[in-house]
Amino acid sequence: METIGEHRSFAGTQFVCQHQSQSTGTPMTFAAYVPDSAQDAPAPVLFYLSGLTCTHANVMEKGEYRRAASEHGVIVICPDTSPRGDDVPDDDAYDLGQGAGFYVDATEAPWSQHFRMWRYISEELPALVGDSFPADMSRAGIFGHSMGGHGALVAGLRLPETFRTVSAFAPIVAPSRVPWGEKAFSTYLGMDQDAWRKYDAVALIEDGAKTSEILVDQGEADVFLAEQLRPELLEEACAAASIPLTLRRHDGFDHSYYFISTFMADHIAWHAERLG
Amino acid sequence: METIGEHRSFAGTQFVCQHQSQSTGTPMTFAAYVPDSAQDAPAPVLFYLSGLTCTHANVMEKGEYRRAASEHGVIVICPDTSPRGDDVPDDDAYDLGQGAGFYVDATEAPWSQHFRMWRYISEELPALVGDSFPADMSRAGIFGHSMGGHGALVAGLRLPETFRTVSAFAPIVAPSRVPWGEKAFSTYLGMDQDAWRKYDAVALIEDGAKTSEILVDQGEADVFLAEQLRPELLEEACAAASIPLTLRRHDGFDHSYYFISTFMADHIAWHAERLG
Repeated sequence: METIGEHRSFAGTQFVCQHQSQSTGTPMTFAAYVPDSAQDAPAPVLFYLSGLTCTHANVMEKGEYRRAASEHGVIVICPDTSPRGDDVPDDDAYDLGQGAGFYVDATEAPWSQHFRMWRYISEELPALVGDSFPADMSRAGIFGHSMGGHGALVAGLRLPETFRTVSAFAPIVAPSRVPWGEKAFSTYLGMDQDAWRKYDAVALIEDGAKTSEILVDQGEADVFLAEQLRPELLEEACAAASIPLTLRRHDGFDHSYYFISTFMADHIAWHAERLG
Repeated sequence: METIGEHRSFAGTQFVCQHQSQSTGTPMTFAAYVPDSAQDAPAPVLFYLSGLTCTHANVMEKGEYRRAASEHGVIVICPDTSPRGDDVPDDDAYDLGQGAGFYVDATEAPWSQHFRMWRYISEELPALVGDSFPADMSRAGIFGHSMGGHGALVAGLRLPETFRTVSAFAPIVAPSRVPWGEKAFSTYLGMDQDAWRKYDAVALIEDGAKTSEILVDQGEADVFLAEQLRPELLEEACAAASIPLTLRRHDGFDHSYYFISTFMADHIAWHAERLG
């Protein structure tokens, strides 16, 4: 692993790291904010998954997480949203291919060779972070935005021992039932919709997956709310499965980092309180 | 004036506005964050001047000022750093021409037609803001970064009634005596260095300009510190003129927004306290 960026910020250091990923077969870049307090005792870790079109850099620059992370003594890891490179398949659309990995392990050609983001974020990256930073991997949580909120919910539901806490900003809660997800899943996973369920938070809950509780913030002026995000489906599934869900709807807020940054400190405090 | 962007963020709204500037003869874009509390009573206003290569957008996206601005009930206005457009003179260098206005009124051809940033930030923009937002213009302050720190210091020293409080992040304190400033001033203002003094904070203080006090934050790992910024010259000038200067030097911090954002809330609180 190579450190390609390093900046003091608040009471900690913002790193940018690059490594050759076994999951994707490509170099992968991620941001890692490490509070100074982690030098004294291994710190809890939060993985933040970004949305469509983003790299590791968007939330690093616009997410405003460092003040809260340093105050609560939490490491924050922000991976890229897909493999990238000239040899990696892509699509002209913003919602498919590079920048749109959807945190699945693709099974369909030509995507299946590199688009292995599920393995990357659920196994390889946590192992690398545990080896490389002063992180207490028994106290890890996950959160994300939009496509990354989908990834975080799926990870929290499938691997509650790895990711003990889970929250999301404006997540795609039921990708199998909305246009973004239908397009991505049919392309990456094929037409058998049974294979989609393990990457769909609402379907996972319907199939019995559990997590201790979920925090979701959603802007009411989000243009993707009704067609792509549909938080009411998560509300129904959590109610039926008795999973405590705190769904906060905010008048006037949209889908942007102006929304994410507003509630970022709340999420970090929420995870930190539960991770101890 | 046209609103070209509008996002809810924290307890307020981030606007992006465009207008035809009489000063520059071009369209000018600026960011305006207005806290909700300004609807109840006119709010103090802070003008933030950005550094080389920046537009209004850099600090809007990376500066992390909205939490503190909404908490303290302060409007924050972030102008562009120069006129822009196909008809506006430019230079291939990053430190001259578009993106590098240096907050002067150019007197040399071909720059003098459009590069009138002093008039823009000192007269036109404050008047426009007073007319367009719920702003109490008798409680205005100014701050900025690097080239924008230079602009803020000059504005605070020349117009202490307009800009009652002044602070800066890593400012160019004596442009007449460092390479960035020598290049810009000789190009925009000509070779008569007497004409430079009214745009040079240290020279202005030597010539008798006053402000009530100054706050400056400076990173010790800033690569421009020794050659371009030289805060010790401001320290000496303020000491000789009995202007109270709080110069805070921070180990490990560089010239980036990771530095600015760390100390942004301190600056907003400092101005808000003094502007009442």
